[in-house]
Amino acid sequence: MPLYKAPLRDMQFVLKDLLKAEDHYASLQGREEVTPDLMDAILTEGAKFAEEVLAPLNQVGDQQGCTWSEDGVTTPEGFKEAYDQYREAGWTSMSARSEFGGQGLPPSMGLLLSDMIGGANWSWSMYPGLSGSAARVLEVYGNEMQQERYLPKMTEGSWMGTMCLTEPHAGSDVGLSRTKASNNGDGTYNITGTKIFISSGDHDMTENIIHLVLARVEGAPEGTKGISLFLVPKFIAHEDGSLGDRNGVTCGSIEHKMGIKGSATAVLNFDAATGYLIGEENQGLTYMFLMMNTARMGTAMQGLSLGQLAYQGGLEYARERLQMRSLSGPKNPDGPADPIIVHPDVRRMLLTQKALTEGSRAFLYWILMLVDQASHGETEEIQKEADELLHLLTPIAKAFVTETGLEVANYGMQIYGGHGYIGEWGMEQIVRDLRISTLYEGTTGIQALDLLGRKIMGTGGKALMGLTKRIHKFCEAQAGNAAMEEFVAPLAQLNKEWGEITMQIGEKAMQNPDEVGAASVDYLMYSGYIAIAFMWAQMVELAAGGSEGDAFMASKVKTARFYFQRILPRTESHKLSMLSGADNLMALDVDEFAF
Amino acid sequence: MPLYKAPLRDMQFVLKDLLKAEDHYASLQGREEVTPDLMDAILTEGAKFAEEVLAPLNQVGDQQGCTWSEDGVTTPEGFKEAYDQYREAGWTSMSARSEFGGQGLPPSMGLLLSDMIGGANWSWSMYPGLSGSAARVLEVYGNEMQQERYLPKMTEGSWMGTMCLTEPHAGSDVGLSRTKASNNGDGTYNITGTKIFISSGDHDMTENIIHLVLARVEGAPEGTKGISLFLVPKFIAHEDGSLGDRNGVTCGSIEHKMGIKGSATAVLNFDAATGYLIGEENQGLTYMFLMMNTARMGTAMQGLSLGQLAYQGGLEYARERLQMRSLSGPKNPDGPADPIIVHPDVRRMLLTQKALTEGSRAFLYWILMLVDQASHGETEEIQKEADELLHLLTPIAKAFVTETGLEVANYGMQIYGGHGYIGEWGMEQIVRDLRISTLYEGTTGIQALDLLGRKIMGTGGKALMGLTKRIHKFCEAQAGNAAMEEFVAPLAQLNKEWGEITMQIGEKAMQNPDEVGAASVDYLMYSGYIAIAFMWAQMVELAAGGSEGDAFMASKVKTARFYFQRILPRTESHKLSMLSGADNLMALDVDEFAF
Repeated sequence: MPLYKAPLRDMQFVLKDLLKAEDHYASLQGREEVTPDLMDAILTEGAKFAEEVLAPLNQVGDQQGCTWSEDGVTTPEGFKEAYDQYREAGWTSMSARSEFGGQGLPPSMGLLLSDMIGGANWSWSMYPGLSGSAARVLEVYGNEMQQERYLPKMTEGSWMGTMCLTEPHAGSDVGLSRTKASNNGDGTYNITGTKIFISSGDHDMTENIIHLVLARVEGAPEGTKGISLFLVPKFIAHEDGSLGDRNGVTCGSIEHKMGIKGSATAVLNFDAATGYLIGEENQGLTYMFLMMNTARMGTAMQGLSLGQLAYQGGLEYARERLQMRSLSGPKNPDGPADPIIVHPDVRRMLLTQKALTEGSRAFLYWILMLVDQASHGETEEIQKEADELLHLLTPIAKAFVTETGLEVANYGMQIYGGHGYIGEWGMEQIVRDLRISTLYEGTTGIQALDLLGRKIMGTGGKALMGLTKRIHKFCEAQAGNAAMEEFVAPLAQLNKEWGEITMQIGEKAMQNPDEVGAASVDYLMYSGYIAIAFMWAQMVELAAGGSEGDAFMASKVKTARFYFQRILPRTESHKLSMLSGADNLMALDVDEFAF
Repeated sequence: MPLYKAPLRDMQFVLKDLLKAEDHYASLQGREEVTPDLMDAILTEGAKFAEEVLAPLNQVGDQQGCTWSEDGVTTPEGFKEAYDQYREAGWTSMSARSEFGGQGLPPSMGLLLSDMIGGANWSWSMYPGLSGSAARVLEVYGNEMQQERYLPKMTEGSWMGTMCLTEPHAGSDVGLSRTKASNNGDGTYNITGTKIFISSGDHDMTENIIHLVLARVEGAPEGTKGISLFLVPKFIAHEDGSLGDRNGVTCGSIEHKMGIKGSATAVLNFDAATGYLIGEENQGLTYMFLMMNTARMGTAMQGLSLGQLAYQGGLEYARERLQMRSLSGPKNPDGPADPIIVHPDVRRMLLTQKALTEGSRAFLYWILMLVDQASHGETEEIQKEADELLHLLTPIAKAFVTETGLEVANYGMQIYGGHGYIGEWGMEQIVRDLRISTLYEGTTGIQALDLLGRKIMGTGGKALMGLTKRIHKFCEAQAGNAAMEEFVAPLAQLNKEWGEITMQIGEKAMQNPDEVGAASVDYLMYSGYIAIAFMWAQMVELAAGGSEGDAFMASKVKTARFYFQRILPRTESHKLSMLSGADNLMALDVDEFAF
């Protein structure tokens, strides 16, 4: 079992050198300032907690899983104790607003932490992660009663929150939900229905659980326009915040899943449970989107952090496992064979892991800075610009980093040969745990439609132009820099092509709306590879003064070269596939798929 | 849980229409003739057994797994009973030689059967599958005593066989094995050592198990040149074939694996166990290769048959699951939403499954005909030509069909959204069961080295030329056929490029042997996509008379179009990646992979 080690050197490099985090945090308004010392302390302490407390519980969580009984769900051994430590150390309150007992740090800090605790133990990290997202919704949209009675406990972590969207017949199509809310006329509603796939829907880690539930008020319009959001606590809180009556929400069962077995995925039955309307009726989806956007970035972090773990595991094994001799002569002549890292194809797998993981880290951390800026940027203009870019990049981050993360995790297994398939080595668990990431919080297909349909076509290409202009400016600034030529030339070329292809698809889509769906996933992956190339080019630029004597920077330059020569060419296949149009997909009658 | 249905229509199409199986079987020498009626009967009865007996045990096998005790391994409920039925119906003896009680049918018939029983229940199918391979080795290399005492029981299926290669420190590098054999001077050897990853290494399905074990005779040369093959029975047979003494081989434990949980993967401890030398000392690897080649084709069938199951599951769900409306207007206006098969991206996933699965079926069945011809072809020339092609195509079949099979299986899960991650739907089991296929019987990397290093470079490109000439001839014969132009033009172009690229890599490899390993996996995948394109082009040619009114052929033409427009372009990325050379892989010092 690879025991997670936080990649602090790379994290610091991306934050400090690439993203100038010091200036970034100093520029934010209305949030506690993150000084370099504070950032170092958070990273170091977060790494310690992840490595020492959470990593040893990762395999335990998978082996024991959660258990259901009529009295509720029991989490794996040690999960609750780890959570108590986490809560007592103040981690749950880090990004919460100070008026609700939080430390008021910028949102990015919570997600940076999640990179480490997620890599160490993704299942465990889902409990506080989702709870934090629920608390953010209450901070923004809750009324005074809701904020006063429920938020302080959620902030201090003694209660947790969930988000309850999915129903058996309503997954991606949330407009089909049937859970009902009937107005009691006293400020409360009775909520009745069944929700499935509710992460942390029931557990023994906190004494109370605060569900945020989408339901349809009687008489509301059909579809997504008639959906409202309710706060439905497991135990109703008294005015002073103490525990009151048990509410009519019960956990009917938990799912048996491929992975993330330490995370309780509940079926929740609401039987005239007392619910409190959040905000206004029929605006539920708008409020939920705040949560979904955070959850999408959280899921992107899953691709990154479990990819990191798979890379660490693969690298460790490749350095130790002795099999066969290097084709260019023995490298370990005194041993019975050479370590497999001498073999070019093992290196191809490792470098694919390294290039995608480190590239994704730069990409996602950049987006975290945009998350901060969108709400706390220095000027309105900065906020607006960050918000636009954030909207564009979120679906790419979610889908691309999870899809490529899965590739990275599968290479982790592959490097181990047959041992990769055996539970005790821990590599197959990473694949199983990560496999959910392209499914939940909106599948890859849903992200791709969001990107190409809403974010690109929906803005007439404007959102994309904001990004391609940045890349163009970067490339122009490198003109005449011979050391950068091998990176800048293909990036500039692809950046130009990106705009042209988008125009072409846009024109076809005006004739046939299916063209958007037909191009969408290839388009998203194509975009992702260019975005990561942009990050690699910027990282390489930092070595502009030469990387001699600096092994870390030399490694970055070599990894960038690998990325540009061996990964970026995938854009070619995606381009050809998406430009082939919708006809080859739509031509088959439904009955022609099988005989 | 998708219950497997044998795709008889497609199997018949490939066998009869594409591969002219009737002529093929009539032409073979020294084997019972397979008449069209017999072939139909075998396919129909095999399908019935697979669907009715094995498919219902597939999920049971995963849930229960095998259990170990000191007395031996117990297989999941129903596995033994299904095997008794299988044996009594005569399936185990189908391809065995008549002099050992077999039915003497051509080898291809056993592999065709495995397409169906593997799709229905891969774990179960491994027991008789591997046993058959072991019996083939004894048929060819065993001495009279070994054949008389052990083969008849293996043929009738009352005993099973295994192959014991791997040791903890010797996986791909079998030359490192340490299991010892000391000659007792009475025709027996004492075998001592530990073997791991032994499929069907212990179980309760038969009263005896015949292990074929690689071991090193005392004083033998180091490495692969000093390895011999031994027959080591669990119970030593008396002269009359009845059960004698328990031998010194015990099952120390079984592995906890990601999937194929119904298949017992044993650690076997040999403690001065009595072994009988097969053939001559130090020739073990040569004999084992016979088994490994069959096992590689068997593993390729795993990619195909589980891919088929994943496609069936995905298609069923896509036709039934109602979510959202078609972008081009409601297709199911009376329902709450449209079936998801209306969405272009769902079709892209389904068609990727269909095009890869049906293309792989044609490809693998073609190879099965070559397997027959290599040993039983009409003339020596036919045998030689088939053998050369078979050697070239086996590593492509094994690695390409399992790698793309995994993609097909993952799309099966993906089409189900979150439900795909839940055990009861059965889709995640397919991914877990199939994940082993790129690891065992030689990883993808090992197959790729075999292809490019031994089969291509090792023959100076001659083996490849045999294939590219065939493709060239096919393309030339289509000249002027306008309906074929869209398929023939890109195929001819790629076929030409294939040869050119091979030359380029060959030249670079002469300077630097690492160039072979650096190009190998991309080269294999590139080759696989071209091979499948060749199969699709040939299938489409059968519709030359037009596909009007014939929905089956119309579907083939549309699927071929999808393959050429959306899958075949992947060759571009593989080409660019492999031509980028070894430097981008070898440049990093081992210490530069992590900091």
